[in-house]
Amino acid sequence: MGVGDPESLTHAASRALAGADVLFTVDKGAAKADLNALRARICARYARPGLRVVEVGEPERDRAPADYPAEVRRWHAARATVWADALRTELDEGGRGAFLVWGDPALYDSSLRILDDIRARGLVDLDVEVVPGISSVQALAARHRIPLNTVGGSVHITTGRRLADEAAGLDTVVVLLDGAAAWQGLDADQWDIYWGAYLGADDEIALAGPLAEVGGQIAAAKRDARARKGWIMDVYLLRRRR
Amino acid sequence: MGVGDPESLTHAASRALAGADVLFTVDKGAAKADLNALRARICARYARPGLRVVEVGEPERDRAPADYPAEVRRWHAARATVWADALRTELDEGGRGAFLVWGDPALYDSSLRILDDIRARGLVDLDVEVVPGISSVQALAARHRIPLNTVGGSVHITTGRRLADEAAGLDTVVVLLDGAAAWQGLDADQWDIYWGAYLGADDEIALAGPLAEVGGQIAAAKRDARARKGWIMDVYLLRRRR
Ligand SMILES: C[S@@+](CC[C@H](N)C(=O)[O-])C[C@H]1O[C@@H](n2cnc3c(N)ncnc32)[C@H](O)[C@@H]1O
Ligand SMILES: C[S@@+](CC[C@H](N)C(=O)[O-])C[C@H]1O[C@@H](n2cnc3c(N)ncnc32)[C@H](O)[C@@H]1O
Repeated sequence: MGVGDPESLTHAASRALAGADVLFTVDKGAAKADLNALRARICARYARPGLRVVEVGEPERDRAPADYPAEVRRWHAARATVWADALRTELDEGGRGAFLVWGDPALYDSSLRILDDIRARGLVDLDVEVVPGISSVQALAARHRIPLNTVGGSVHITTGRRLADEAAGLDTVVVLLDGAAAWQGLDADQWDIYWGAYLGADDEIALAGPLAEVGGQIAAAKRDARARKGWIMDVYLLRRRR
Repeated sequence: MGVGDPESLTHAASRALAGADVLFTVDKGAAKADLNALRARICARYARPGLRVVEVGEPERDRAPADYPAEVRRWHAARATVWADALRTELDEGGRGAFLVWGDPALYDSSLRILDDIRARGLVDLDVEVVPGISSVQALAARHRIPLNTVGGSVHITTGRRLADEAAGLDTVVVLLDGAAAWQGLDADQWDIYWGAYLGADDEIALAGPLAEVGGQIAAAKRDARARKGWIMDVYLLRRRR
């Protein structure tokens, strides 16, 4: 579904949405009201009028588990059970359900894993079609009008949690899922940063510059925005300076 | 413009195309006829009828230079001059030119660098708006219905040329621009491969499996396809086996 703007959906995605019998939504957290409003705009524009929307519940999750991968697996299995129940209850044989995934479903999203799990466990007999969407990474690059890669260089996409361990030797790093401001753990003289928050939305923010000059300012902007709205989604690209 | 299917354009992209006064095309190589046909389909569907199409010439390029980055820079500067001439000659003051970039303009494409160069050198006074598109990497993941990342893991996007040097320690590597079959330089027992060629086109090919089992078969499929069509574009994801 892209990241915020109904115009960022592809024609394939809006056509798939128009063909859906039921839209399944899986919402959580502080951004829920804003995401619901956005989804309503997208459906008003592209979906069949009166499309039935079914909210799928979210099982409880331990946010600070001793064994992180094990807890993620347990939680995904619990989600698969809940999703399978919803699919079985709400769709007729041969019916079409849609999930509007934020950005691109291939990037830090568990929907495909859950649907695989449903098939592997034989919970529901289903065919899955994936329609790609514009990711936050692409929205960031477009907003700053930059290529992700340097000439012939590689692009490393990672999370805030991994940044400090992985940055050595890299030329370009893109960071998602940074609850804090992980760029502050790097040697600021080595990098330029291109940062964006709420990309695609009316209140999008974009800042860029040498990390040593703007790193602190961006951390402050992030704190302020989160305090103001109650949630934040931000992504950034770090480019090693020559 | 996405990679092949007019349906993979976003609504923002088709709207931008519809608003263009001139479409600039920059074609080269063996894929030219196929790309022209695809572009014609996209324009027939979305552009203003009778949209003027201007082909921008390609300066000569040394494909085996002693100093690769220097030759790339020289060639980009020469392209900037040719593009600037075309923009100045073909567009009126305030006119809108469009470039239909393959996939997403942020990934291994030089259009943004050339336009930056035109601005930096003051050759033409222009505003640039970037509209993201579905990249071949996303088309690959969607075709195989896989997420790019493992749970919480990172995704390294690189070129065939760099793969052997960079693969150590990585969990997921995506490879573009591989003129050969660089996966054959890796320890085949360590990886699964998800491969796709001509993604989005009618003759798309997708193969996947443990590298030790399918690596040779994919190399053969690539040779055959290239011999048959005269050119190939392929991309693949390598996932470390556990
Ligand atoms: C769970 S991941 C999902 C990513 C999504 N599938 C995509 O393709 O962008 C959520 C993270 O994506 C990034 N993100 C998503 N939407 C964003 C937006 N509109 N602006 C900035 N960052 C965004 C943030 O890093 C956020 O922590
Ligand atoms: C110069 S790069 C341009 C990439 C493009 N900007 C994108 O976003 O996909 C060309 C490389 O992209 C990949 N590629 C582009 N189109 C493709 C397609 N339809 N199927 C498979 N690979 C493709 C191949 O690795 C090819 O060598």
